[in-house]
Amino acid sequence: MTTTMDGDRSGVPPLTKGERTRRRIMDSALELFGERGYTSVSLRDVAARAAITHAGLLHYFSGKDDLLITVMIDRDKQEIIALQEHIEQLSRRDGRPWTVDDVGLSWLVGQIAANQRRPDLAPLYVKLSAEATEPSHPAHNYFRKRYARLRRTLTGSMARAFATADPPVTGHDPVAAAAQVIALADGLQIQWVLDPDSVDMVASLLGYLRMLGIDPDGWALADEAAG
Amino acid sequence: MTTTMDGDRSGVPPLTKGERTRRRIMDSALELFGERGYTSVSLRDVAARAAITHAGLLHYFSGKDDLLITVMIDRDKQEIIALQEHIEQLSRRDGRPWTVDDVGLSWLVGQIAANQRRPDLAPLYVKLSAEATEPSHPAHNYFRKRYARLRRTLTGSMARAFATADPPVTGHDPVAAAAQVIALADGLQIQWVLDPDSVDMVASLLGYLRMLGIDPDGWALADEAAG
Repeated sequence: MTTTMDGDRSGVPPLTKGERTRRRIMDSALELFGERGYTSVSLRDVAARAAITHAGLLHYFSGKDDLLITVMIDRDKQEIIALQEHIEQLSRRDGRPWTVDDVGLSWLVGQIAANQRRPDLAPLYVKLSAEATEPSHPAHNYFRKRYARLRRTLTGSMARAFATADPPVTGHDPVAAAAQVIALADGLQIQWVLDPDSVDMVASLLGYLRMLGIDPDGWALADEAAG
Repeated sequence: MTTTMDGDRSGVPPLTKGERTRRRIMDSALELFGERGYTSVSLRDVAARAAITHAGLLHYFSGKDDLLITVMIDRDKQEIIALQEHIEQLSRRDGRPWTVDDVGLSWLVGQIAANQRRPDLAPLYVKLSAEATEPSHPAHNYFRKRYARLRRTLTGSMARAFATADPPVTGHDPVAAAAQVIALADGLQIQWVLDPDSVDMVASLLGYLRMLGIDPDGWALADEAAG
């Protein structure tokens, strides 16, 4: 049913009833995975949270793995769209084309600032990425690829930040620094989710970047992510 | 039964049959929690892995939460004993008293080097600490306290390393640097467990410490942890 409806969409029409139900199921799944992790949540739990029958849910998703992967890919899509909009906004503002390399690091810090204000997402990623370290976990390949992609993207951003720093940074390897800044963000989130008063995630990340010789003052954080 | 036996112990006598069974249950639990996380492992799974009946297991542990907490506290005890032995060894070697502040950072790096060679422990801590971010998780308070204690210990070690560096490091806050090095170690482990070829955890940690102005060359890593 949703597939047929999808074919009719043009521009951004209001969601159909089926699409709204599908979205409600995905939101409920995200909430529950964030609260308890993936493994210990059942499809029946998701159905109950979404106020739909178990059979009704199976009309939209073939199973829990399907639901998880769909939800994660949907989150990624939303993030890519938001990042593109952010880049276009900066390009229009400055009358010159910005790229992902230009904004990768400020985007990462902005996401962490956003997580600090939306305390449901950090636990979700903390729990899912940890569970998914198990090779048999349905999101294992997703997270392997996600981290590989993140390292690649942030290597470009790191190289750009090193080259444009004043003075330019020559003593650090962008590949190693990219893996390090991702690790730092992940690890800070664990401590923060366990005890929000224990660490200031944004200050710590900015301090780390300054230590590398990068000056984050004057960075344009995304509007919705600005601390 | 074990309690009575405990009362009789002096020195390091061989384990009784009951103690050996108890130890086997704990080892099986550690293995399974490391493989699948805590939430999705049942007491029956642990009993099966330990080759004991479910009723037999309940003779030793009142439930899964009891088992988890016992296992974690036991791991901590083993680590404290190993750390003490390491400190005593260095003190004897050099004829002067070493302290935790002196060896905290090298110990942390040594543990990560050890995890890199014993690939069962890193997934265990990655998964358990992530699950335990949930306030209702039985190990939530354990991990909150564990991180608070780690930050405190490593703040002392960081301050000592800054003071004894050549030249002494004055521009960094030991409290923030302690939270950062723990976060880095945790985050590197997530990437490493997902894809062991993606990051060199020890090199990354040592690089971070060098960036802080600390020189880790010539550090005595613990024997069992030496990379």
